[in-house]
Amino acid sequence: MPIDAPILAQTPEWLDLAGIAVFAASGALAAARAQQTLVTFAFFAVATGTGGGTLRDLLIGAPVFWMQDNRALAACLLMALAVWLTPVRWWRPRALDWFDAVGLAAYAVYGASKALAFGVPPLQAAMMGVVTGCCGGIIRDVLAGEPSILLRPEIYVTAAALAAGLFVGLTLLGVALPVAAGVGAVAGFALRAVAIARGLGLPTYRG
Amino acid sequence: MPIDAPILAQTPEWLDLAGIAVFAASGALAAARAQQTLVTFAFFAVATGTGGGTLRDLLIGAPVFWMQDNRALAACLLMALAVWLTPVRWWRPRALDWFDAVGLAAYAVYGASKALAFGVPPLQAAMMGVVTGCCGGIIRDVLAGEPSILLRPEIYVTAAALAAGLFVGLTLLGVALPVAAGVGAVAGFALRAVAIARGLGLPTYRG
Amino acid sequence: MPIDAPILAQTPEWLDLAGIAVFAASGALAAARAQQTLVTFAFFAVATGTGGGTLRDLLIGAPVFWMQDNRALAACLLMALAVWLTPVRWWRPRALDWFDAVGLAAYAVYGASKALAFGVPPLQAAMMGVVTGCCGGIIRDVLAGEPSILLRPEIYVTAAALAAGLFVGLTLLGVALPVAAGVGAVAGFALRAVAIARGLGLPTYRG
Repeated sequence: MPIDAPILAQTPEWLDLAGIAVFAASGALAAARAQQTLVTFAFFAVATGTGGGTLRDLLIGAPVFWMQDNRALAACLLMALAVWLTPVRWWRPRALDWFDAVGLAAYAVYGASKALAFGVPPLQAAMMGVVTGCCGGIIRDVLAGEPSILLRPEIYVTAAALAAGLFVGLTLLGVALPVAAGVGAVAGFALRAVAIARGLGLPTYRG
Repeated sequence: MPIDAPILAQTPEWLDLAGIAVFAASGALAAARAQQTLVTFAFFAVATGTGGGTLRDLLIGAPVFWMQDNRALAACLLMALAVWLTPVRWWRPRALDWFDAVGLAAYAVYGASKALAFGVPPLQAAMMGVVTGCCGGIIRDVLAGEPSILLRPEIYVTAAALAAGLFVGLTLLGVALPVAAGVGAVAGFALRAVAIARGLGLPTYRG
Repeated sequence: MPIDAPILAQTPEWLDLAGIAVFAASGALAAARAQQTLVTFAFFAVATGTGGGTLRDLLIGAPVFWMQDNRALAACLLMALAVWLTPVRWWRPRALDWFDAVGLAAYAVYGASKALAFGVPPLQAAMMGVVTGCCGGIIRDVLAGEPSILLRPEIYVTAAALAAGLFVGLTLLGVALPVAAGVGAVAGFALRAVAIARGLGLPTYRG
């Protein structure tokens, strides 16, 4: 498989790490809601922070990213400790939603970009963006026994799909990578932001 | 790993795609029952339609089948759209059960056949048939928070095990592949058909 | 990836198989509690007995261990049959807890050792020990729809973390492998034993 290094080289690494950290925090907070121990905080933070990227890497046949890179794992463990040590009122759901929106949009673009770099075709690459952005949260919900984010009507998966789809589409049209990444991430974030601010949801099925 | 291409070449491709489409439909219908959005329909259809085959490919060390082949993904997305656009009464559970029975039997044989082609020993290959046939539905149930198909007394996993086991056993005995595949698939379908028609179940455990 | 064969060669194989068998039994017993059929017993036994090691192998990029080795699969299927055929009172939860404690400690050390042998760095290798020891049980709980072992306050994941962490730490310090493995496994077992005997738990989070 040809690895198109420039694509990944141009994706800012701190965005990747910020996404991991935000998802890890949401995992630790799920452990806090369930009144768990510090070890469980760490387990949830790692599973949520790395879960989406891990599934993406397994699907596209890449080495699992956090096996050889200590920073992702360290970021998850630090977030677990931070949530454990600080008063819960510091972590307001509303504030987290906004961080999570940044992580979701950046992560969806990053995931699609990595898939393209591994020679995955466009449609699947966009889907890998969605998997990267959303599956950490799904794993968290299944582990915690909470209703999955998938089943809430609010726009969430759709924002990831918009970010990843725009990025892949613009790349296909020949738009420069940083521009395509920026447009995709901003559009995905904006859609999720409207959903948070106005409770916007897609129409649901009525048989 | 030696890839025995003839085995796969002789397995009719349309059966594989039909199995994916039927499972994708059952995933979209789970989303419909939960009154979800079109994006969630697509997510459920893809996870259910490709889940069993994806797990099989990861276990046997094969490239994940739908990463380089657009037809599987397209079939899942089309089924999601079809369920979304049509009245729910068109999709009667009873009718779906029968399609699902065809998919289960065909998929179990196909999964075992692919595992054999990748050099997996007989016992594990038969188990890969069961994984291919059943795990899409298990993933769907876990995502939707419904009681897993695994826990219903009706014969289901057993039919997949019969189809895959017969196919592998006959192949070991030197029976020609298309014959072994046909006998396995028909036997698995017949067992599941009796289970649907008569509510047949295996004896359950009583301590 | 350099495979450091001596590490694995020195890990007693019967410990590995014993861990698989104990976890398989706990899976079959979950099926028994849910009054399932023999086929479901087998499915649960295989998923629980091989689940943790399978996830570890996928994460570290190793071939999935039970694909080419019949003994692990045979051990799982035999345990399913044993639980099916014997009166449930033979399988007292308390007795199983003690077997499980042995399996957890041995498996955590074995998993970390295999990860080191595949060139995984220390922190991740210790985490792979935890994954190997705990994820079979998590998969069992999710499949059975029971509250996950992760969410019980009793010390469990922590014992696996102690066993794997001590083993990796001592190995880094140059301690001979069999000694490091023994110390790690005994310490992890001892911690879990105190947890079982006294109901010991870690402090939980109180916002």
